[in-house]
Amino acid sequence: MAARASEFDLIARIRARIAVRDDVMLGIGDDAAILVPPPDRHLVVAMDTLNAGVHFPAETAAADIGWKALAVNLSDLAAMGAQPAWCTLSLSLPQSDAAWIDAFLDGFLALAAQHAVALVGGDTTRGPLSVCVTAHGLIEPRGALRRDGARVDDDVWVTGTLGDAAGALRQWRAGEAIDATLRARLDRPTPRVAAGRALAGIAHACIDVSDGLLADLGHVCAMSRVGAEIDIDALPASDALRAACDRATLRALQAAGGDDYELCFTAPKTARLAVQAAMDCCDVAATRIGRIVAADAGRIVVRDATGVEWSPPARGYDHFVD
Amino acid sequence: MAARASEFDLIARIRARIAVRDDVMLGIGDDAAILVPPPDRHLVVAMDTLNAGVHFPAETAAADIGWKALAVNLSDLAAMGAQPAWCTLSLSLPQSDAAWIDAFLDGFLALAAQHAVALVGGDTTRGPLSVCVTAHGLIEPRGALRRDGARVDDDVWVTGTLGDAAGALRQWRAGEAIDATLRARLDRPTPRVAAGRALAGIAHACIDVSDGLLADLGHVCAMSRVGAEIDIDALPASDALRAACDRATLRALQAAGGDDYELCFTAPKTARLAVQAAMDCCDVAATRIGRIVAADAGRIVVRDATGVEWSPPARGYDHFVD
Repeated sequence: MAARASEFDLIARIRARIAVRDDVMLGIGDDAAILVPPPDRHLVVAMDTLNAGVHFPAETAAADIGWKALAVNLSDLAAMGAQPAWCTLSLSLPQSDAAWIDAFLDGFLALAAQHAVALVGGDTTRGPLSVCVTAHGLIEPRGALRRDGARVDDDVWVTGTLGDAAGALRQWRAGEAIDATLRARLDRPTPRVAAGRALAGIAHACIDVSDGLLADLGHVCAMSRVGAEIDIDALPASDALRAACDRATLRALQAAGGDDYELCFTAPKTARLAVQAAMDCCDVAATRIGRIVAADAGRIVVRDATGVEWSPPARGYDHFVD
Repeated sequence: MAARASEFDLIARIRARIAVRDDVMLGIGDDAAILVPPPDRHLVVAMDTLNAGVHFPAETAAADIGWKALAVNLSDLAAMGAQPAWCTLSLSLPQSDAAWIDAFLDGFLALAAQHAVALVGGDTTRGPLSVCVTAHGLIEPRGALRRDGARVDDDVWVTGTLGDAAGALRQWRAGEAIDATLRARLDRPTPRVAAGRALAGIAHACIDVSDGLLADLGHVCAMSRVGAEIDIDALPASDALRAACDRATLRALQAAGGDDYELCFTAPKTARLAVQAAMDCCDVAATRIGRIVAADAGRIVVRDATGVEWSPPARGYDHFVD
């Protein structure tokens, strides 16, 4: 039987495990947190919720849910080029379960510690399993990587590899054994914080790949009022994903699969060496996958290496489209 | 049949209706918002979630849910003495329903407009009905009203009237007609923002009454390592609540009923005129209901006007205690 704890025990359990930052004047335990932003920085705020059965299978390990709930928010900060600083957490649980919460915090706080993020507040409520996180970051004025900055003739780049998380989900849905490498990419995504920081001042536009490459690059193009041409055979794939599926499936997963949390960014051709140097500094691979073109805003044409146009089977994941 | 809209239509619907502030450099529509905190202020952050069936009856009007989801967060800022500035909203819905969302926004944005709060980001996801809000406020350095500042011999004060929201909930649970005045207090609580601002520099400690007076004052006393003596007959009651129940019920609702979102604060005896002047300025009633005493931390003794000790039937509401 699961141990039960009151909401206040739970808050005490969380308080005992969080990191300390000098810019947190008052953390968990009052009506609100008090934070001291540095005078020469702008504040960057992202908020994302993960619901059981929608954003993760209900049987996902608590530690992985904790990690991912913070990771998707830090990924949003990374896509802006911001340095993470503080977060708040709202956790809805069907019942209090001290072991589950400890495991959840193991994952959440391990990632928070990697980025020196302080958990400063939030709430715990009864309800269907749901995790909402608000992440706060800091950025130099005018240093942000926005979605609306892509320019015609920019290169389009992506960090890491694409399709791994969707590959794991596909194996899970098919009832197959899930490759450990792919599963780690689905359950424990790496927010590209250092890469985002390094790209500030180099990239023209940036987004994190959460809904799928074409959907997310589509947002960049729509907001920048440009189009893009993508080489499907240039998309970076992991060895694990190549081993797990045929070429048609590989292409579909890379182009339209979500949840990889890589950065897709555009930068001028003249910045190719600067991009590579920036990525080398933070030990992140980056691949050129296409270019920005003058076209209807948001229109993306995908071709294979022989120049034949390729149509994706789906354009990302939209929670409200049945 | 409900109209259906994609997540991106929904975001467009929200964007079209939000307030503009000069300190919002980038609002809804990118990976994160970019905000410009003034250099001479600290940042105050509160986060609270409302779940259907837990924090409000599932049949509550969408506009009232929208209002209340923001109100409970602004109330937390008020209890710190902060000036609200920005908020983010994460809305989980079983299905997209444009009419429901418009009504929800009617309530949410009406309250946001009252306090010049800009909605700057968040997300919409599929899931059981749940509303999570993070509210950001600004405060002068060292001006915050914390829970840990109560001192022995302070007066204990409360704004407005107590027990109204619990009175409405009691009528609803009993299947009775709900008094309109009480219902408005449950569905559309007034965050005491101006009162909180006016008390900064006067009050020693403050909390908003969300779990019930004795539970919330208990938090203040525990964190301040003091006790309190409360006169149950001094607790302010509305005419509507007096008309709706007998004296024993009245006392129980006032002492232990939650959801009123009044401010309970402590201030030195020498500040009585200053408190009254501050409350007069923002047209809020405030009542002295007892005093802080040297006692076991968090211990509260309640007496009636004749000095007889009174025991509450319940000590507030804890979501995780069955």
